[in-house]
Amino acid sequence: MKKFEEKTVMSQPIFQGRVISLKVDDVQLPNGATAKREIVNHPGAVAVIAFTAEGKLVVVEQYRKALERSIVEIPAGKLEPEEQPAATARRELEEETGYACKELTYLQTFATSPGFADEVIHLFIARGLTPVQEKAALDDDEFVELMEITLQEAEAMMASGAIYDAKTAYAVMWWKNQK
Amino acid sequence: MKKFEEKTVMSQPIFQGRVISLKVDDVQLPNGATAKREIVNHPGAVAVIAFTAEGKLVVVEQYRKALERSIVEIPAGKLEPEEQPAATARRELEEETGYACKELTYLQTFATSPGFADEVIHLFIARGLTPVQEKAALDDDEFVELMEITLQEAEAMMASGAIYDAKTAYAVMWWKNQK
Repeated sequence: MKKFEEKTVMSQPIFQGRVISLKVDDVQLPNGATAKREIVNHPGAVAVIAFTAEGKLVVVEQYRKALERSIVEIPAGKLEPEEQPAATARRELEEETGYACKELTYLQTFATSPGFADEVIHLFIARGLTPVQEKAALDDDEFVELMEITLQEAEAMMASGAIYDAKTAYAVMWWKNQK
Repeated sequence: MKKFEEKTVMSQPIFQGRVISLKVDDVQLPNGATAKREIVNHPGAVAVIAFTAEGKLVVVEQYRKALERSIVEIPAGKLEPEEQPAATARRELEEETGYACKELTYLQTFATSPGFADEVIHLFIARGLTPVQEKAALDDDEFVELMEITLQEAEAMMASGAIYDAKTAYAVMWWKNQK
């Protein structure tokens, strides 16, 4: 869908980082006027709604520097170049939780912040979890704590703000709908 | 919650834009090692789940340069300095849809991309919509098309990808849970 398309007149690269890059585009608006768009490019990510045999949701607590606090999230991670989202989902689930999964089902993709970023998250559902013998290593700069929670606990964490990010909030709402 | 806190050792400002700014922080990790964190600062936003008297959801289609396509979203917008979220919600609803609302209820706040941005969205529910006599002006660079959709239509738009952002996906899932 290209309704109200904003054509790029000029694109200025500002920053190229390890995770994101930033550019400022001059665009031509539908009425012919021009405007500036500040755009963050991100490789995209996956997130996994993983259930234990007891029907609990697997979540990890981790510190988020951007928020200056730790929050409880479903396992997630960035896509590596050329990596298929399903492979990323299995990798991140194993790295962050120590679980492999028998079943992995694609649920949905959404953009997290379309006003300024191209990041999308591919959501998967994982069932049939089995602890891996040799737990894969986390990234060097990653510290997470594993938890397994009921829907009631998840809703309480939403209410308290312990669960505080869009993908996990969506996952909890989706879960509630399955009941 | 400060578990696994990452203390700032140095903070380097990279970019100060109209909407976002970017910095790179050197942080000290829980194990004493250091790492870099690329962080986008955003003023925060509101989004409004607004229902017409017929029980339809009010949505707007708009072009999102970051995604290079138009998507269908619930009305939303950035917080202005010193503005209370509820006031932003009423203002954005009126600007984007031409509706004032009698009832505005706070639902929830979530962070959209905690891995690299501090953006949070405050979600509100609006009911008792009345068309305003003198429709408030959109921002100069804003072009939107108003639609009013049923839950069934919303779910079809999720399936087709017309609805494609986290806040609107969450809103649809929340709505489904109310039924």
